[in-house]
Amino acid sequence: MTAATLEGSQATVCCAPIAREPLGEGDAAELAVLLKAVADPVRLRLLSMIGSHAGGEACVCDLTDAFDLTAPTISHHLKVLRTAGLISGERRGTWVYYRIIPETVARLGALFAPLAHTP
Amino acid sequence: MTAATLEGSQATVCCAPIAREPLGEGDAAELAVLLKAVADPVRLRLLSMIGSHAGGEACVCDLTDAFDLTAPTISHHLKVLRTAGLISGERRGTWVYYRIIPETVARLGALFAPLAHTP
Repeated sequence: MTAATLEGSQATVCCAPIAREPLGEGDAAELAVLLKAVADPVRLRLLSMIGSHAGGEACVCDLTDAFDLTAPTISHHLKVLRTAGLISGERRGTWVYYRIIPETVARLGALFAPLAHTP
Repeated sequence: MTAATLEGSQATVCCAPIAREPLGEGDAAELAVLLKAVADPVRLRLLSMIGSHAGGEACVCDLTDAFDLTAPTISHHLKVLRTAGLISGERRGTWVYYRIIPETVARLGALFAPLAHTP
């Protein structure tokens, strides 16, 4: 394998860090916080709705209609995602517009990336 | 992009499903269960210790020494990982030997795979 010579996103494909070397306590604690933020069906759906929305940006007004939940509940879930650094929000006029923060999502992707040497 | 023509692990690189289309309720519920199983520092460390162990297999006797936790606590965490389908265990003689189940880890990897069209 010449994985070490690959650049950019391809470099994360080679070896899932989760199976390459034991995670340190600090990394494990940090990643667990991030994983807890996404380990919820509503937050996973919100994240995918934001990421797949036209222009990669979704107004909070686009999100609430899809759920049988109150606006404060949706706001709470958005806040958890935002606090974890998974999304950013920007107020423009009446509404807040959300975007995925690709670096944080990529960190999770790299952790569980496909193993190159799977038997 | 010719991502559709790529095969194997490369095919998961193109578009993070999380940002490609809104997740359905069923998928989100299933993935949240899987994510909850890994959203714990001890379980993340156990998973990485098992995956990175020589031969991709670790004896429970190799795992307990690394933690300042009782054997029943480690057993509980291993059971959560096993129930979620992230590891398999096989008893041979005195000990149980654990392996990562790559398909389940790859499912998480694919969900958060790097985005090809990140602005």
